[in-house]
Amino acid sequence: MTDMIELAEKVGDALKSKKLLLSVAESCTGGGICYQLTEIAGSSEWFDCGFVPYSNSAKTEMLNIPASLIAQHGAVSEEIAAAMAEGALANSEAHVAISTTGIAGPGGAVPGKPVGTVCFGWRVGGITHTERKVFSGDRHAVREQTVAHSLNKLLRYVEEI
Amino acid sequence: MTDMIELAEKVGDALKSKKLLLSVAESCTGGGICYQLTEIAGSSEWFDCGFVPYSNSAKTEMLNIPASLIAQHGAVSEEIAAAMAEGALANSEAHVAISTTGIAGPGGAVPGKPVGTVCFGWRVGGITHTERKVFSGDRHAVREQTVAHSLNKLLRYVEEI
Repeated sequence: MTDMIELAEKVGDALKSKKLLLSVAESCTGGGICYQLTEIAGSSEWFDCGFVPYSNSAKTEMLNIPASLIAQHGAVSEEIAAAMAEGALANSEAHVAISTTGIAGPGGAVPGKPVGTVCFGWRVGGITHTERKVFSGDRHAVREQTVAHSLNKLLRYVEEI
Repeated sequence: MTDMIELAEKVGDALKSKKLLLSVAESCTGGGICYQLTEIAGSSEWFDCGFVPYSNSAKTEMLNIPASLIAQHGAVSEEIAAAMAEGALANSEAHVAISTTGIAGPGGAVPGKPVGTVCFGWRVGGITHTERKVFSGDRHAVREQTVAHSLNKLLRYVEEI
């Protein structure tokens, strides 16, 4: 947990130094990214808001993701991760946004998408990046690895711009 | 942490047995309530979505809380906690909603609202309940106590209807 707080602090410092506000859209991590970031005192200087659109209807209602796009690609897809990050940006005052959507388990696996499959989105500097990974471990482990990976790559992207 | 997971499980069981979907609007807890609830496998059966409107503009944008209401009462007030719970319900498919807004510290105290002040909202069975409490401890301790109190009272209100 110390590592995670250090990572959250580094993310906060990077955003603050570039005067960027962040918004987060997280499905499989269910608020874990927002919670880690807001453990940092003064996070309101760089953290704007978070969306936890757990159900598909919430993805549509909160982030304006067309139900047809979810039906076409499935909620756990790089296409939906991209749409979530872009929706989080469009529905907030933030300058950069990140997203997660995945199958934390133990149920929920579908053909081609085993438990541990997570799709990520990062919208930084006008570019949307996505990635798909498959993590090992139980529900808690999958979610913790997802939080860490999302923040590690956000840090890299923010440092690059 | 074991206690928190047990509490989250009890909340989930109570919601599931009454076929109720929950939405959460959390400011000072920054996603911690959503994260605890979604640690439970199968939580998508009773957890619809969460809002983390950390900034005041996000409270207005995500939950339609008038800026004038925030200016009148302050973001940390029972009036805004009530508006957050009602906004979380209005902007989701959920049947019940809870909210938190507070000063986790170490900064942020204002006259009459010391560090540790938290206002809660619960919208259950068509009634909005609010409460104001002052917790002791550091930022992490204030947030953890807030998550626990919010869920404990939600459990009681859901069991009563």
